[in-house]
Amino acid sequence: MSERAAMRILLVGAGGVGSAFTAIAARRSFFERCVVADYSRERADAAVAALEGDTRFVAAQVDASDASSVEALVREHEVTHVMNAVDPRFVMPVFEGAHAGGADYLDMAMSLSHPHPERPHSETGIKLGDEQFAVADQWQREGRLALVGIGVEPGLSDVFARYAADHLFSEIDELGVRDGANLAVEGHDFAPSFSIWTTIEECLNPPVIWERDRGWFTTPPFSEPEVFEFPEGIGPVECVNVEHEEVLLMPRWVDCRRATFKYGLGDEFIEVLKTLHKLGLDSTEKVRASGVEVSPRDVVAACLPDPATLGAKMTGKTCAGLFVTGTGTDGRPRATYLYHVVDNEWSMREYGHQCVVWQTAVNPVVALELLATGEWTGTGVLGPEAFDAVPFLDLLTAYGSPWGQREDGLGDVSVGDERHEAV
Amino acid sequence: MSERAAMRILLVGAGGVGSAFTAIAARRSFFERCVVADYSRERADAAVAALEGDTRFVAAQVDASDASSVEALVREHEVTHVMNAVDPRFVMPVFEGAHAGGADYLDMAMSLSHPHPERPHSETGIKLGDEQFAVADQWQREGRLALVGIGVEPGLSDVFARYAADHLFSEIDELGVRDGANLAVEGHDFAPSFSIWTTIEECLNPPVIWERDRGWFTTPPFSEPEVFEFPEGIGPVECVNVEHEEVLLMPRWVDCRRATFKYGLGDEFIEVLKTLHKLGLDSTEKVRASGVEVSPRDVVAACLPDPATLGAKMTGKTCAGLFVTGTGTDGRPRATYLYHVVDNEWSMREYGHQCVVWQTAVNPVVALELLATGEWTGTGVLGPEAFDAVPFLDLLTAYGSPWGQREDGLGDVSVGDERHEAV
Repeated sequence: MSERAAMRILLVGAGGVGSAFTAIAARRSFFERCVVADYSRERADAAVAALEGDTRFVAAQVDASDASSVEALVREHEVTHVMNAVDPRFVMPVFEGAHAGGADYLDMAMSLSHPHPERPHSETGIKLGDEQFAVADQWQREGRLALVGIGVEPGLSDVFARYAADHLFSEIDELGVRDGANLAVEGHDFAPSFSIWTTIEECLNPPVIWERDRGWFTTPPFSEPEVFEFPEGIGPVECVNVEHEEVLLMPRWVDCRRATFKYGLGDEFIEVLKTLHKLGLDSTEKVRASGVEVSPRDVVAACLPDPATLGAKMTGKTCAGLFVTGTGTDGRPRATYLYHVVDNEWSMREYGHQCVVWQTAVNPVVALELLATGEWTGTGVLGPEAFDAVPFLDLLTAYGSPWGQREDGLGDVSVGDERHEAV
Repeated sequence: MSERAAMRILLVGAGGVGSAFTAIAARRSFFERCVVADYSRERADAAVAALEGDTRFVAAQVDASDASSVEALVREHEVTHVMNAVDPRFVMPVFEGAHAGGADYLDMAMSLSHPHPERPHSETGIKLGDEQFAVADQWQREGRLALVGIGVEPGLSDVFARYAADHLFSEIDELGVRDGANLAVEGHDFAPSFSIWTTIEECLNPPVIWERDRGWFTTPPFSEPEVFEFPEGIGPVECVNVEHEEVLLMPRWVDCRRATFKYGLGDEFIEVLKTLHKLGLDSTEKVRASGVEVSPRDVVAACLPDPATLGAKMTGKTCAGLFVTGTGTDGRPRATYLYHVVDNEWSMREYGHQCVVWQTAVNPVVALELLATGEWTGTGVLGPEAFDAVPFLDLLTAYGSPWGQREDGLGDVSVGDERHEAV
């Protein structure tokens, strides 16, 4: 470890997740510098100002749609790791800017997909991350690391997959990410706690599934609905298949028969998304209304409250996790849900950030600390499941945010529930 | 009849209903002149041109939001009857312009309501037609007639109420308007056959109900859902209470215990309207999106196909009717549905107009013919139920558009179905 250069981070994006990232990182000592960059210099300044004099953080302006803008900041600040915290539309320029500048790279969402032109609901077109994996050999040859999908989902869910394979199962049938929450916003009939623009994008894209005998394939939106029972009082939530990075990542490093991602949207939210699609209100192609040209999806977003402003009015918990079925290390059938729950009241009190963005932001801080200490090393374009899960889960717990494990009877009610508490 | 002045009509509005009105009236001889006026002179010209040389029709430009513009046309063309066929937002200026110019007046929708400021879902505020009834004494004193609500609903439904009271029932429990259809539009998942803007306005206003012991009162939107069985193959459709003129008109002239209006929106459409409301997309207050100011409701309308263009792609039938319960003239319990069905294929073939607008437009033509021949006379602000129903129903049948009567077992299945065919 003594030979490692001091870590110098460039955080691209000072929005909800970016500013939660800085609040969490500020309590740790593993890095020497963190440049907080945003398209809005004011937003970057505000994020740094909130850290009350921690001189490791400095603000900067960046254009995330321009690789050379990212590269210039990497060179100017001798950055070792670029942390991408902007909209997935900007993954490629940030990824390329990091490479051009000579820095390693981390993100929480991968390069975007494009549906199959003729058979979008049965075959994949360009998949999530394809553009990044296309240059994986080059990154590996150069001894450089791009750690992709290291938020909570993808991210912690992928760490759980590695943990299940190494420590709980001798054979895995399905790696099924299951995400659900019981969040409510006071004073609002309907107020999503995350960007409706991105949610529409995720949920109306054809969901992707992986099977050993079939590879990756797609289905129509909202396929395979199931009611999943979430832990710690969240309870049953209706989940449907959604396109998500884990399905593209987990089968590359973890042996399994099937990989899925189901999002606990709840029946009300599913109905809303279906209705928006039926009326064409999900479209980003402009229409003429009130004498002006406007994108219907932008209008939908404008009618809803800004999720970034809702933290103080929100109550409830959010749960990210992985439901694994197969054969346990004892040779008997096993069904285990590995999960991480954050209570909004706790994250608001402890960090001043709402639980959904806090839960996303904590994982890349943990990963960067493992890279800084040398507990995690690797080269190429790698997912979180390419690394040992134990030091990650231990450090997450040490951050004060424990994870949980529930043993489910197969086709039966829950038979056990264990929480890995912080020590 | 020899003393009556020749009828000279000013039609205000050459949209869907207005141009269907001219197509129907052109086949009748009861009037001498019909001035077809629209805000768009081109639209008025097109409606007149479609009548292929019938010199009784002349085109004009009018501003329906300006009473003096209507008055000027009344004077210029020595108009005896102003026929209002524009959006209900313009009822009052057209009504006042007719009065100022010395003409009688007809419309198919009454002056707009405003909800109760504190208790919108239990008490009425300003009711539909209140502004017109406020000057009823003046119209009566001057020997002038305003025949309000003489489309199909309101209109024919109110005629049915008069007919039921005079010929079928000794005592009426409920006068329940029930409107339903089985229209579908080829090539569209979701394509309303009528203005979504107006439908939102009607359906999200608090519905109004009248009861003998309570007077007029309101409920939350979509109240008292019921599945009503519509005749002639339309079948069961989910209906809910909606604010509509009949509830304000029928109890003024027809003795009953209760008056309601239920619209057969169907469960899918009800779900769409509820979702639009939940997301604030029904609002007409502008929001900022894509860098411009826009009304969300206008964006919803812009995303859907223009209903005026759908006639040729539409299939199915529309039904307007009145379900009457009470005691028959024989002293026994009776439940009768009086109805009028138009098949889109028929109205497109016979008149080139889709069934919903054709069904609305035929009724004021019939009423004007009865006023021209002197079979209907009256003064003041009157609803259709203030006149004898029999000549109206006979003339409607003579126009080639018969009505129907179904006797329903009380709490039982249908026990009879009779159609009053054209002779």
